[in-house]
Amino acid sequence: VDNHDDAFIVQTLEGVNSADVSTLLNEFDTDDSKYVIDLLDPEIRAEIINDLDEDTREKFLRAFDTPQITEIVNYLDSDDAVDILNELPVKEREEVIAGLDNQEKEANILDLLRYEDDIAGGLMAKELIKANVNWSIDRCIEEIRRQAENVEKIFQIYVVDNEEKLIGKVSLKKLILATNEKRVEDIYETDVIAVETYMSVEEVAQVMRKYDFEAVPVVNVQGKLLGRITIDDVVDVISEIAEEERQIMSGISEDVEEDDSVWMLTRARLPWLIIGVVGGFVSAKFMGVFEAELIRITAIAFFIPLIQATGGNVGIQSSSIVLQTLANPSAFSESLVRRLLKVLLVAALNGLVLALLVYGFNMITGGEISLSIIVSCALFCVVLVASFMGTITPLILDSFGFNPALASGPFITTINDLLGLGIYFYTVHLFLS
Amino acid sequence: VDNHDDAFIVQTLEGVNSADVSTLLNEFDTDDSKYVIDLLDPEIRAEIINDLDEDTREKFLRAFDTPQITEIVNYLDSDDAVDILNELPVKEREEVIAGLDNQEKEANILDLLRYEDDIAGGLMAKELIKANVNWSIDRCIEEIRRQAENVEKIFQIYVVDNEEKLIGKVSLKKLILATNEKRVEDIYETDVIAVETYMSVEEVAQVMRKYDFEAVPVVNVQGKLLGRITIDDVVDVISEIAEEERQIMSGISEDVEEDDSVWMLTRARLPWLIIGVVGGFVSAKFMGVFEAELIRITAIAFFIPLIQATGGNVGIQSSSIVLQTLANPSAFSESLVRRLLKVLLVAALNGLVLALLVYGFNMITGGEISLSIIVSCALFCVVLVASFMGTITPLILDSFGFNPALASGPFITTINDLLGLGIYFYTVHLFLS
Repeated sequence: VDNHDDAFIVQTLEGVNSADVSTLLNEFDTDDSKYVIDLLDPEIRAEIINDLDEDTREKFLRAFDTPQITEIVNYLDSDDAVDILNELPVKEREEVIAGLDNQEKEANILDLLRYEDDIAGGLMAKELIKANVNWSIDRCIEEIRRQAENVEKIFQIYVVDNEEKLIGKVSLKKLILATNEKRVEDIYETDVIAVETYMSVEEVAQVMRKYDFEAVPVVNVQGKLLGRITIDDVVDVISEIAEEERQIMSGISEDVEEDDSVWMLTRARLPWLIIGVVGGFVSAKFMGVFEAELIRITAIAFFIPLIQATGGNVGIQSSSIVLQTLANPSAFSESLVRRLLKVLLVAALNGLVLALLVYGFNMITGGEISLSIIVSCALFCVVLVASFMGTITPLILDSFGFNPALASGPFITTINDLLGLGIYFYTVHLFLS
Repeated sequence: VDNHDDAFIVQTLEGVNSADVSTLLNEFDTDDSKYVIDLLDPEIRAEIINDLDEDTREKFLRAFDTPQITEIVNYLDSDDAVDILNELPVKEREEVIAGLDNQEKEANILDLLRYEDDIAGGLMAKELIKANVNWSIDRCIEEIRRQAENVEKIFQIYVVDNEEKLIGKVSLKKLILATNEKRVEDIYETDVIAVETYMSVEEVAQVMRKYDFEAVPVVNVQGKLLGRITIDDVVDVISEIAEEERQIMSGISEDVEEDDSVWMLTRARLPWLIIGVVGGFVSAKFMGVFEAELIRITAIAFFIPLIQATGGNVGIQSSSIVLQTLANPSAFSESLVRRLLKVLLVAALNGLVLALLVYGFNMITGGEISLSIIVSCALFCVVLVASFMGTITPLILDSFGFNPALASGPFITTINDLLGLGIYFYTVHLFLS
C-alpha cells in the first residue's frame, strides 16, 4: 500500500472473498483501507464495507462523500443499506436516500428506517421471493427468475393472496419437481410460521432456532408480508447477545476489545470499578459502627471474606439459573411463589451443608465455639438472602425491560455484598448482646 | 391423555409443527409422552424425538425397544441419527445399526460415529447434493432430483471431480437459470470454502458466521467431500457455547434449569460453593497470622471488602476482554509481551484513579492518614496483580485445552481473592514495621 502498487493490490485481492478482505481492512488504518478499497469494483467495495466491524465502518464512512455512499447503498440489500444509513448523520442520510435512482429501493429503505433495530422489523430485509397463489407453475418460475435478480439467496418462496397476505410457502425444490400443468395453489403448504414486525430480536432468534429456519417471513398485524429475516443476521444477533451478556456480567460498559486504545479500555472499565470501590467504602464505614465489637473479638474480621464470597457466589448462581430460564422459556411456567419456594428450599439445603462444613472446620482448627456458631448462623442466613435476591433481581429487571444479566453485574453484586456484611454484623450484634 | 382419548389427541396434533409437539412433550412425564407419541405417524414421531431436549430424550429412549429405535433412526438424517445412537448403551447401539435395512445409511452412520462431537466431523451430515464436474446440466438436474429425496434442504450443490474431491459449488438458482446446452463445468464457481473434519465446532461457527453460510462442506485432509454442516446445528452450538460459558462463569457445574429437581440443583451448585467456603476459611486462617496488627489497628479490617471486591472486579473484567479476543480472533495478533504491557498500562491507569479516589474519600471522612496511604497503595498493587492474573489465566487455560471461561469462575476467583488479601496484609505489614 505504501508503494502505491495498485496493480499488485488489485491482482492480489482478485477472487478473494469479500469477508476476508474486510477482516484484513479491520486491522488497517482508515486511509490505507480507503486507498485499497477505491481500487476495487464498486459492487465488491459495497460488500466489503458491509462486512466491516461496526466501529471500523463508522470511521470509514466519514472518509467517503455522499455520492460514493449512495453508490455503496445502491449495491446492498435493504437491511444492510439501512444499517449503514443509521450510522450516518441525519443530513447525509437524507442526501443519500434522495440520491438513490432506484425508486423501489428508496421506498424499501424508507419503510425499514421506521423500525428500531432490536425488533423484527429492524432486522428484516425487503428482498424476498413471493408468488401469488393464483399463478401457474410456469408463471411462477418466470416471476422467480425476475425477482431472483434482487435476491441473493432464495430459501423459500412465500405464497400470498391478492391482498398480499401471507398464506403459505413452497420450496424451490418442490417447484422444480412439480409438473408444469399444476398451479401454485396445488402445491403450496399452508403451515407457514411468520414473525410479526414488533417481536423482539431475541424472540425471532428463538423461533428460528426452534424450527431450524434459514429465513422467516415478517408480517404486520394485518398479516401482510413485509419482508424476511435471514439466519445470518440472527446468528450475528445471538452472538452479540451472548457477548453483551458477558460484558454486563463482568462489568464492562462498552463493546471493547483487546486491540482498542488504552483510553477506551480504561473508560469502559472504570465506571464499574468505581461502583465497587464506593461499595467497599460504604462497607468500611458500616464496619466502623461495629468497631467496639471488632475490638472485643478481632476474629470477627477473619470471616468477612468467607461470608462475602459465599453470598456473592450464591447470588450469581441464582441469577444465572434465572437467566437460563428466561433465555429458554418453558411452555408451562410455574407460579412465582412456587418458584421462590423452590429456590429457598435449594438455598436452605446448600446453606445447611455450608454452615455445617464451616462449623466443622472451625472445630477441627480449634476455633472458639460461640464465634463458630455465629459464623455458621450468619452464613446460613446469607445463603438464603443471596439466593432470594439473586432470583428476584433478574426477574424484576426483566419485567421493567432492563437486561436481566445486569443482576450478575458489579452493581447488584456490590449491593449484595453490603447486604451480606449487614447480615453478618447484625448476627454478631444479636449474639453478643 | 389420562382419558386415553386417542382420536382427540391425534386430531389435535395433526398439522402441528413437530417442534411445537416436542416443546410440549419436554414438560410431560415419559409415560404420558410415550403414549401420545405412539399414536403418531412414524416419520413425525422420529422428528419429534429428534427435537426433544437432550435429557428428556435420553429418558425417553429407554422406554423404546430396539426395533422401535431402529425405525426412528431410519427416518432421520445421518447426523441426527448419530446423536441419538450416542445416547444409547453400546450393545443397543450395535443392535440398532445392525437392524438398519438401508445399506447406505448404515455406512454413513458408521462413518460418523468415528468423530468426537466437538469437531466438524461430529457435526456434519452425510446427506448433501453433489454434482460431478463433467455432467451436463440435464444430467445434473436429473441427479439432483434423485438425490433430493434424501436431502431436506439443498442450499448449494457441491461440485466434485472424478476422485470425489471438492472443487467448487453451484447454486440451484444458477442451475435453473442456465440453458440446457451448458455443462456443470461451464457454470460452477471454483471459490468454495470448506472446513476440515478435525476443525473445532467453534472454528466452524466462526467460518459460517464470517461468510454468512447456511451450509458448509466438510472435507478430509485429502480434500475429499465427506459431508456438510448446516447452520441450524451451528446455531445450536453457538447457543450452547454461550450457555456453557455463563454456567462456568457463575459456578454451576451441570446443565441445570429452574425446573430440575431440588437435588439436581443442589448438586450442581454445591461443589463451587464449597470451593468458595474453603477459600474463605483459608482467608480466615491467613488473617489469624496478622491478629496482632489487627488488634493494634482494627480499622485495617474495614477495608478488606473494598480490596477484595475491586480485585475481583478487575480480574473478571480482564478475563472477559481476553475471552472476547479468543472468541473473535483478529487477523494480526500482537505478541504476548506487548499485550501484557498494554494490560498493565490500563491497570496502572485504573489503579491510580481508584487509589486516589479512596484516598480522597478517606480524607473527606476524616480517616487516619497513614492507614489511608496503606489502603491506597495496596489497592493500586491489587489492581495491577488482578489485571495480570485475569489476563494470563484464560490464556494459560486455553493453551492447555481447558475452557478459558473457567478464569471467570469461582475457583480462579477464590485464588485471586486470597492473593488480594495477601497483598493487602503484606502492605500493612511493610508499613507498620
